[in-house]
Amino acid sequence: MSLPFALSTLARGMRPSPIRELFPLIRRPGMISFAGGLPAPDAFPVEAFAACADVLAARGREVLQYGASEGWPELREVLLERMTAHLGRPVAGDELLVTTGSQQALDLLARGILDPGDTVVVEGPTYPGALHSLRNVGARFAAVPSDGDGMLVDALPEVVAAVERETGKRPRLVYVVPDFANPTGACLTLARRRRLVELAAALGIPVLEDDPYGRVRFRGEALPAVTALAAGSPWVLYAGSFSKVLAPGVRLGWLVGPPELVRAMVMLRQGSDLCPPTVTQALVAEYCRRGHLEGHLERVIATYRVRAEAMQRALRAELPEGAASWREPDGGFFHWLRFPGRDATALFRSAVAQGVAFVPGVAFFPEPDEQVGGLVVDAEHARLAFTFADEAGIVEGCRRLARALAE
Amino acid sequence: MSLPFALSTLARGMRPSPIRELFPLIRRPGMISFAGGLPAPDAFPVEAFAACADVLAARGREVLQYGASEGWPELREVLLERMTAHLGRPVAGDELLVTTGSQQALDLLARGILDPGDTVVVEGPTYPGALHSLRNVGARFAAVPSDGDGMLVDALPEVVAAVERETGKRPRLVYVVPDFANPTGACLTLARRRRLVELAAALGIPVLEDDPYGRVRFRGEALPAVTALAAGSPWVLYAGSFSKVLAPGVRLGWLVGPPELVRAMVMLRQGSDLCPPTVTQALVAEYCRRGHLEGHLERVIATYRVRAEAMQRALRAELPEGAASWREPDGGFFHWLRFPGRDATALFRSAVAQGVAFVPGVAFFPEPDEQVGGLVVDAEHARLAFTFADEAGIVEGCRRLARALAE
Repeated sequence: MSLPFALSTLARGMRPSPIRELFPLIRRPGMISFAGGLPAPDAFPVEAFAACADVLAARGREVLQYGASEGWPELREVLLERMTAHLGRPVAGDELLVTTGSQQALDLLARGILDPGDTVVVEGPTYPGALHSLRNVGARFAAVPSDGDGMLVDALPEVVAAVERETGKRPRLVYVVPDFANPTGACLTLARRRRLVELAAALGIPVLEDDPYGRVRFRGEALPAVTALAAGSPWVLYAGSFSKVLAPGVRLGWLVGPPELVRAMVMLRQGSDLCPPTVTQALVAEYCRRGHLEGHLERVIATYRVRAEAMQRALRAELPEGAASWREPDGGFFHWLRFPGRDATALFRSAVAQGVAFVPGVAFFPEPDEQVGGLVVDAEHARLAFTFADEAGIVEGCRRLARALAE
Repeated sequence: MSLPFALSTLARGMRPSPIRELFPLIRRPGMISFAGGLPAPDAFPVEAFAACADVLAARGREVLQYGASEGWPELREVLLERMTAHLGRPVAGDELLVTTGSQQALDLLARGILDPGDTVVVEGPTYPGALHSLRNVGARFAAVPSDGDGMLVDALPEVVAAVERETGKRPRLVYVVPDFANPTGACLTLARRRRLVELAAALGIPVLEDDPYGRVRFRGEALPAVTALAAGSPWVLYAGSFSKVLAPGVRLGWLVGPPELVRAMVMLRQGSDLCPPTVTQALVAEYCRRGHLEGHLERVIATYRVRAEAMQRALRAELPEGAASWREPDGGFFHWLRFPGRDATALFRSAVAQGVAFVPGVAFFPEPDEQVGGLVVDAEHARLAFTFADEAGIVEGCRRLARALAE
């Protein structure tokens, strides 16, 4: 039976994400998946996390009740302390919002600062989930190309000017993943970070630094967060997440931003999910207070280093000379491969037939018809996550990929 | 420092909910609160729920991972079985969406079927959180008056016609809480339920039956859900919640609706919070599978029956003759008191000074400037929740209310 009433303009205009379309293919039995950006399930801290469940008994009456829309006080304490260290300045309570996954930080931020038709500047390529949240409020996109050192920040003024020429309006947000970007794995250089902070204020456009992967570094020195370099400037906002450093199943993230923005997002969230789940917040707060997080992070990093290196070796050993090029990531979840002269979406279909999955690069760009200020697309790249399959799976997956390339 | 960039039109237009404004007053030490619609913390199933946490150890690798946007399979099974019983027909998997609280069901439904400026028909008075979700997508409201038997459904065609005359467009949704409505505690009669089902299809307007309280009945026979009477008609949607029958801290609700609508909501949720928290879904599924829910519900009902009756007695004993009138609820959370000739918001301020809080009736109506099709307001009523304070608190709170009335 077809729906007898109309969906909203927003819902009618939705397009299935290319990634979502691929899910059924990827789930076939025997498939080796380099596709989803999923943490390694064997690296989850199952025992230590489950042991924290005694908080559900000890503080059940609070834990089972409605909580504050701003977040559970103990989790807020943990986050304020961590953010104060990470951003290099005291972060105040009214700058912090706990969210139901950092996806909700994006969702509430989008609703809080964008009107339909507004333009957001993103890296090309960028995280498709961010495009989705922003699309949900009717955003259009200007894509700034990126290279192995992240967004080409110096191109930002020209992109902004092109958007203004085309739409008559300045973009309302710059969205960037400076550390181990999704999908490229690139880290924005220090010079580009500094330039981005200057440009945010100079152009009058707030920047969201989305940082799910920054702590997952297995080589080299950490760079200061863009938000840390901004030193309290209201032009730079920070979003963090427990998904990659602890577990996505808790659906907890957070945003640090100017109090007035946080207040607006709190009000929007009261019409959205009222408050983050108190049960998961209490569990995660307990997990952090017991000092588990740092030790677990070491284990996560060790696991992913081994897998990233295994994938490096397997790609070099299995793929034909010159068939693909990539840059070794220093952390994060992803290899970003270029297959010169090949269409990565066509290659994806061959690869799936061979029993290995990845995500074709086109999934990480705004669709051509929603881009303004100049078209940026890329059909030759593909994202391979090295986090989910184990070492044997990684080797076999790369063999299958080689067979797909040979077709 | 004031925000240097603009908030969205939506965020700039937000008004603090009258209920939210009252929160700081209500939280004063020593305050007896009849205000929030909070479950009794002493009726939470702390031990049984905490015992279910062994699922976090036994199935940690799945529980800590991302889950399906449609919900955790085991929880979906529980809900499909319960909904099949409650709606009197087999409910299919593609009709069900698990949401992060039933508030999110409202949020996603609003985004899925409403365009900015569209009108939603609500009961006057109605649940302020619903107004908030709907307002977040730019909705306006037509309020249909209600009495002790719920919405005056026969008035619906005239209200719809008035909206069409005023806006040139038909309302896009009817929102109703047929069982133990918030704030009135009223149950929609069987005849009105039947008429509502007829009118939904006849007028071509989908109806959302929001049912957080239906199972909390301590007197009388349950009436069939409006959605059950609709017998699979796509015009009637159903939203349920674990907040009042188990615990709000799990933030889990669900929606049953036509597959095409559910699919649209799933896509919207992928830009919103990706998936409901797997941790809480696994805990709640386990709690239900162990058969705890029905037994717990008996305890909840017994607790609230005692408290509702205690409030009845105390109101009769303490308030001056004729100062207030009300109808005894058969379930739910609320007494809805009329104070003839008095302004309930002014009375609220006196009451808070005396150390007792409730919610003035105006909080349950759309603001006059967002109503279309005729103005419905009510300044003489107040909502008193009987669920949160214990019996001694209820008696003392009613004494304080009497002192406020005497001022």
